[in-house]
Amino acid sequence: MFEFTLEATCGAARTGSLTLPHGTVETPVFMPVGTQATVRTLSPADLAAVGASLVLANTYHLHVRPGEQVVEKLGGLHRFMGWDRPLLTDSGGFQVFSLEGFRRVDEDGVEFQSHLDGSRRRLTPERATEIQWTLGADIAMAFDHVVPGGADATTARDALERTLSWLERCARRHRELADGRTAGRADSTAVTDRLSARPPDRQTLWPILQGGTHLELRTEGLRRILELGEWTGLAIGGLSVGEPKPAMYRVLEALEPRLPSARPRYLMGVGFPEDLVAAVEHGVDLFDCVAPTRNGRNGSAFTPDGPVNIRNAEHREDPRPLDETCDCETCTTFSRGYLRHLFVAEELLGLRLLSLHNVRFLIRLAAEMRAAIRAGHFARWAADWRRRYARSD
Amino acid sequence: MFEFTLEATCGAARTGSLTLPHGTVETPVFMPVGTQATVRTLSPADLAAVGASLVLANTYHLHVRPGEQVVEKLGGLHRFMGWDRPLLTDSGGFQVFSLEGFRRVDEDGVEFQSHLDGSRRRLTPERATEIQWTLGADIAMAFDHVVPGGADATTARDALERTLSWLERCARRHRELADGRTAGRADSTAVTDRLSARPPDRQTLWPILQGGTHLELRTEGLRRILELGEWTGLAIGGLSVGEPKPAMYRVLEALEPRLPSARPRYLMGVGFPEDLVAAVEHGVDLFDCVAPTRNGRNGSAFTPDGPVNIRNAEHREDPRPLDETCDCETCTTFSRGYLRHLFVAEELLGLRLLSLHNVRFLIRLAAEMRAAIRAGHFARWAADWRRRYARSD
Repeated sequence: MFEFTLEATCGAARTGSLTLPHGTVETPVFMPVGTQATVRTLSPADLAAVGASLVLANTYHLHVRPGEQVVEKLGGLHRFMGWDRPLLTDSGGFQVFSLEGFRRVDEDGVEFQSHLDGSRRRLTPERATEIQWTLGADIAMAFDHVVPGGADATTARDALERTLSWLERCARRHRELADGRTAGRADSTAVTDRLSARPPDRQTLWPILQGGTHLELRTEGLRRILELGEWTGLAIGGLSVGEPKPAMYRVLEALEPRLPSARPRYLMGVGFPEDLVAAVEHGVDLFDCVAPTRNGRNGSAFTPDGPVNIRNAEHREDPRPLDETCDCETCTTFSRGYLRHLFVAEELLGLRLLSLHNVRFLIRLAAEMRAAIRAGHFARWAADWRRRYARSD
Repeated sequence: MFEFTLEATCGAARTGSLTLPHGTVETPVFMPVGTQATVRTLSPADLAAVGASLVLANTYHLHVRPGEQVVEKLGGLHRFMGWDRPLLTDSGGFQVFSLEGFRRVDEDGVEFQSHLDGSRRRLTPERATEIQWTLGADIAMAFDHVVPGGADATTARDALERTLSWLERCARRHRELADGRTAGRADSTAVTDRLSARPPDRQTLWPILQGGTHLELRTEGLRRILELGEWTGLAIGGLSVGEPKPAMYRVLEALEPRLPSARPRYLMGVGFPEDLVAAVEHGVDLFDCVAPTRNGRNGSAFTPDGPVNIRNAEHREDPRPLDETCDCETCTTFSRGYLRHLFVAEELLGLRLLSLHNVRFLIRLAAEMRAAIRAGHFARWAADWRRRYARSD
C-alpha cells in the first residue's frame, strides 16, 4: 500500500502510479479541491465523469463544520461525500495561517478564531493528525507553519524549524493511531478508542517542506525531513503564496535533484494550466488548486488557446463549444452562446458547467503530459502547448 | 402528430399518451419549469436521469433575454438548451400580468416594462405566437389575459373576452406560420421568411381557458374555445393564482364533464404533490410548477411522509437518505447528514441535489398515479397516499 512506481522520465518530468487504499492514481495528477467535502458545484458522479482520481478536502473546514465526529458517524469522509476513490486531506496549517483574525503561535500549536463564529480554537500537530485520522482520507498531511511569499530568512527559518518539530509530533501521533494505541491527550481518547480496529495501512502521512523562497532553507529542510523517516510521499508547501513565479521555479530547480526519485512530489496549491506544465518540467507529480472551480464560477474557462471569458458579448451567438478539443459534458452538449446566456441570466447551471469543463481541462492536461513523457518528447510537447496557449494572451 | 391516446380511466382520473414531434409523453405528466431555458441547477442529463419527458420554458423571459433571434441562430430552443425531447413554451401572458411595474392593456395587446432594464416592450397575440414559433417548442400556448385569484366577475369577464379574441388571432397567426406564409406585420417578415421551410407539423398551439373562479364564465369560455377550433390540447389557466384551493377544485369539477375526453388537459402552474393528486382526481393530464426546484433551493424536500426541511438540526448525524423509496442520485448517494452539511455550509451542490430529488419525486408521483389508474384503484391509492403524506404535517 502507498507504493509509488516510477514508469518513465523525460528530463526532470516523470510519470508513474501511486497505489492508495481507495485506488491507484496515475501521475502527474491534478486534484480537484473539495474544501468542505464537496468540489463546489460538482457531484461525485461529475468528478468520476471528468476522470478525477484523487480529491482534496480541508481538515480545518471540516473540523469547524460539521466537525470530524459528525463525518465519522456518517461513515467517514469517503462515505460522507459519496466519493469512493482516493482522498487527501490538507492538515489545516495553510488555512489557519491564511485566515483573517486572531492567531497565536507557540511551540505547542496555534490558537485561532473560527471563521464561522469567531470562537477560539486550537490546533496542534497531534490534533491535526487525529482529526485527519478520524476523517479517514488515504493521504494525511503534516501540520505546518506557512509564512507569506515575501517572508525574510529569519521568519522563514523560524517557521521551518517549527514545521520540522511539528512533523515529528505528527508522525509519532500518526504511528500511534495506526497501531491502535490511545493517545496521551485526554480529549482524543474517545476518538482513538473507536478507531483502534481500523487497519494500519488505511492512511499515510506526508511531510510538508517549508522554507519560503530561501534555497538554503529549502535544501536543509528537505535533508532533515528525509532524515526523519521513510515517507511515502513529500509535499512542497509555502509556494504560490504571493512570491514572484521565478522564485517558485528557482526553489523547484534547487530541490529537484535532491528529492528522492522513488517518492511522489506534491506541489501544494498549484495551479493554473501554465503552472502545471512548468512544475511537471521541474519534476512535480501532484497538484491541487481551486482555480478551475473558482474561475469557472466567475465565467472564465480554460481552453487550449488560453482563457476565455464566457460573459463577453462576442460569444452571444457563437454556436461553437467552449473548447473544441474537449470531451466533457459542457463541451459536447452546449454552445458558447448558451453558456453565455446562463452567465448573463445568472443561472446556477452555468457555474457548474464551467467548473466541470475547467476540472476536465486540467485532468486532460495531466493525461497529455503523461503521454508526452512516456513518448519521450515532453519538452517539445510543452513548447507546442505553450505556443498555442499563450497565443490569445 | 400531436395525437392523444386515452388508455385508461378510473373515475375522472385518466392515463394516456401524447405524441409530439420530439417524442411521446405519458400522462398524467409533471413538467419541470425551465424559465430561462434551464431548469434551475439541473442539466439536460439530470432531467433525462429523473425521467422528465416534457419541459416548459418561458416565452417572455427568452424574448427579453437572450431574444428569440439568438435562440434561433443557435439552432432553436431544443438545441440551445441541449434538450432533444418535447418542450412547451408558455405564451408570456402570465408573466406580463404578474410582473411588477408599468403595464397597459388594450385590445391589441399589452405594453409593459422589461424586468431586466425597465425598457418598454409590447406583446400582442401575433408577436407571442411568432416568438414561440421561432423558439420552436413542440407545444405553444395562446397569449392570454390573466387576472388575480380574487378578481370579480366583471374583471374576469373582461379578461375572458380579451383572451378569447386573442386566441383567434394567435390561431390565425400560427396557421400562417405553419403554412409558411409571411405576416402582415412588417417586424416579423424576416422571421417568417426564415421559418417558411419548416414543416407545418413542428408545433401545435393550445388555447388557455380563463374566467377566474366564476363557474359560469369558465363553462362559457370552454364552450366558446371548443367552437373556435379543433385543438390538440387545452389548458386551464388563471388558477393557483391566489384563490382558495376549494375554489380551484370547484372550477375543475364544473369543467371536467364538459372537457373533450379525447384531448389532453393542462392545469397551468400546479403544483405541490397534494395538488397533483387532487387535480388528477379531477381529470387533469399535465402540470407544471416551479415548486420542486424553488423549494429544493430553499432546503425543502418532498418525501412520501410529507415535506422535510433538510436544514433542521435533527438531520445533523442522520445516515438515512432523504427519501428511502426514491431512486434518484441524491437519495442513492448521500445521507441526510451530508445534505444538511451542504445547506449549512452554503454549498451549491445542495441546491442541485434537492432540486433533482424534488423533480424526481413529482415524476415518480405521476408514474404511480398512471399505474394506479391502469390498475383501476386510483381512489384507494390516493387515499393511502394522502394518509401517509399528511402524517407529518
